[in-house]
Amino acid sequence: MYLGSCRYKLPSPTDDPASYEKIFDTFEEMEVDSFFYIGGNDSMDTVLKLSSYAAERHKPVKVLGIPKTIDNDLMHTDHTPGFGSAAKYIATCLREIWHDTMIYHVKSVTIVEIMGRDAGWLTAASALAREDETTAPHLIYLPERPFSVPRFLSDVHHLLDVQDNVVVAVSEGIRDKDGAYISASVSTSDTFGHSQLSGAGKALELLVKEAFGVKVRSIEINTLQRCAAHLLSQTDQNEAMQLGAKAVQSAVSGLSGHMMVIDRLTNDPYTTAIATFPIEKIANGVRSVPLSFINNEGNDVTEEMLIYLRPLILGEPVIHYENGLPEYLSVAHLIK
Amino acid sequence: MYLGSCRYKLPSPTDDPASYEKIFDTFEEMEVDSFFYIGGNDSMDTVLKLSSYAAERHKPVKVLGIPKTIDNDLMHTDHTPGFGSAAKYIATCLREIWHDTMIYHVKSVTIVEIMGRDAGWLTAASALAREDETTAPHLIYLPERPFSVPRFLSDVHHLLDVQDNVVVAVSEGIRDKDGAYISASVSTSDTFGHSQLSGAGKALELLVKEAFGVKVRSIEINTLQRCAAHLLSQTDQNEAMQLGAKAVQSAVSGLSGHMMVIDRLTNDPYTTAIATFPIEKIANGVRSVPLSFINNEGNDVTEEMLIYLRPLILGEPVIHYENGLPEYLSVAHLIK
Repeated sequence: MYLGSCRYKLPSPTDDPASYEKIFDTFEEMEVDSFFYIGGNDSMDTVLKLSSYAAERHKPVKVLGIPKTIDNDLMHTDHTPGFGSAAKYIATCLREIWHDTMIYHVKSVTIVEIMGRDAGWLTAASALAREDETTAPHLIYLPERPFSVPRFLSDVHHLLDVQDNVVVAVSEGIRDKDGAYISASVSTSDTFGHSQLSGAGKALELLVKEAFGVKVRSIEINTLQRCAAHLLSQTDQNEAMQLGAKAVQSAVSGLSGHMMVIDRLTNDPYTTAIATFPIEKIANGVRSVPLSFINNEGNDVTEEMLIYLRPLILGEPVIHYENGLPEYLSVAHLIK
Repeated sequence: MYLGSCRYKLPSPTDDPASYEKIFDTFEEMEVDSFFYIGGNDSMDTVLKLSSYAAERHKPVKVLGIPKTIDNDLMHTDHTPGFGSAAKYIATCLREIWHDTMIYHVKSVTIVEIMGRDAGWLTAASALAREDETTAPHLIYLPERPFSVPRFLSDVHHLLDVQDNVVVAVSEGIRDKDGAYISASVSTSDTFGHSQLSGAGKALELLVKEAFGVKVRSIEINTLQRCAAHLLSQTDQNEAMQLGAKAVQSAVSGLSGHMMVIDRLTNDPYTTAIATFPIEKIANGVRSVPLSFINNEGNDVTEEMLIYLRPLILGEPVIHYENGLPEYLSVAHLIK
């Protein structure tokens, strides 16, 4: 049964009893024994609400959560499926942007805006792009630390003194010390006159251009970081399968109201165990980047972060190409 | 010898005789027999100037051009190395953006801005993304036809009437009937106050939002379309090698002042011949998309364009990955 697409927040049973009745009537009608809900924070909120409702009313259906979000911000799991592949894609983009930038012998600043409104995991993954200590990204800013414009300009200034090309990775969610997003205003000048806020990347582009007068470009990786299925992490794909298998086993053994989680056992070799965790401790929490993963200056990640990230992007699944393009199964054909 | 990076326009011998003397002295000193210059329009202008200078002054060095530009806008060659891979990347992005968009059951418009200031080849390549007649891109606008805002809004309106998600591919270089670029103005609202023009994608995003009030997003593929070396066309790579080999053979046989070109012999099977063409007929021209490759409404490409494009993206070279990321040779290590 299709319950709607992502970003859907289920109302509480008090606010919308009819929906709950319909959902559980449908479960009964269709003889649904177990309901698996795959997603991020909003989806886990749904798992909490449905499993609590089922428990309170002694409904037989088991409700379990399976994590899946590139944001990597679910509590009590080492990481989430989707993140490793997005991290691999972002690091690849940063490496390619560096090779595109470094051939020009003029002072330039390239700002790459990466997804992450509240957590900086994806932006941190850009650090994996580095081939040695001289290559991009040269500065990394996450939303977990307040963003200071003067401090940022000083960071860029120091680098421009010693090198031609500076590449900056920045989370879309960076905010100043008062919690205001860093953004610029955009407006059409024609008769349709409309305006809106730009992202952090465009705002920093304008600031750098004004401050230093050098060549500046901002690149927003945009939705490609969550949909570039031609560049996946095999580790990520394997773990997604393991979490799905664990969910089925858990349902068969009678468990409900839990999310499947990944516990990391060792880093080298990288080993994990798949476990379950009570959904009420997961739903509506956000797992931010720990401050020990960010350097003191707030403009880079630490070796601890790199140790955490490295295993997650390993391995390349075989992608099926037809007529020169990757072939994907269409969700539209699966949902009736 | 490294003559500077791309986007460099060599002055004429009249304006800068010293540079020419230095270049040809260096050729003599280093016993350079042949000079191959790889690039797009600006580079072919350099080949013209250096080869004419050499001919006039009876310098023994042979100067030959090897085409390489994702813009695909060099005259007298069926296409240029770089284009096939960029086309494959753009079509892949459009397909992935469609799979990311079509899962949402709300009215939405996604505008993808693609490179091409004067020629629409890259934007046209987005059409390869289609899996059937319902999938993205639904509208395609190239700079070869004047862009009309009312006509564009009417095109979008008709589609929104019959489907949820509309994806538009648009060249950065679209202009109105008076030749003015379609753009919006962007400014910082803080003390650094600075403003500049946005791209076409952002401008159309604002227009659509104002006109229809639906969910709108603009995505600028940006420099990734020219540097995403993890997704290459094998056909493109093979032809680049063939053009390089032909250049060496031509130099050995004494030719100068020519560019290597690809002649297409047949489409199915796709066969080509590598030939040479006088540089003076190539330099400073721009090969635009023929009007027969664009539909009458100016909002899509024709089957003729697809027949032209299809062979160019075929085949996937093996990419070497290390630690989960593609490994690239660094130009910095080659240039001393």
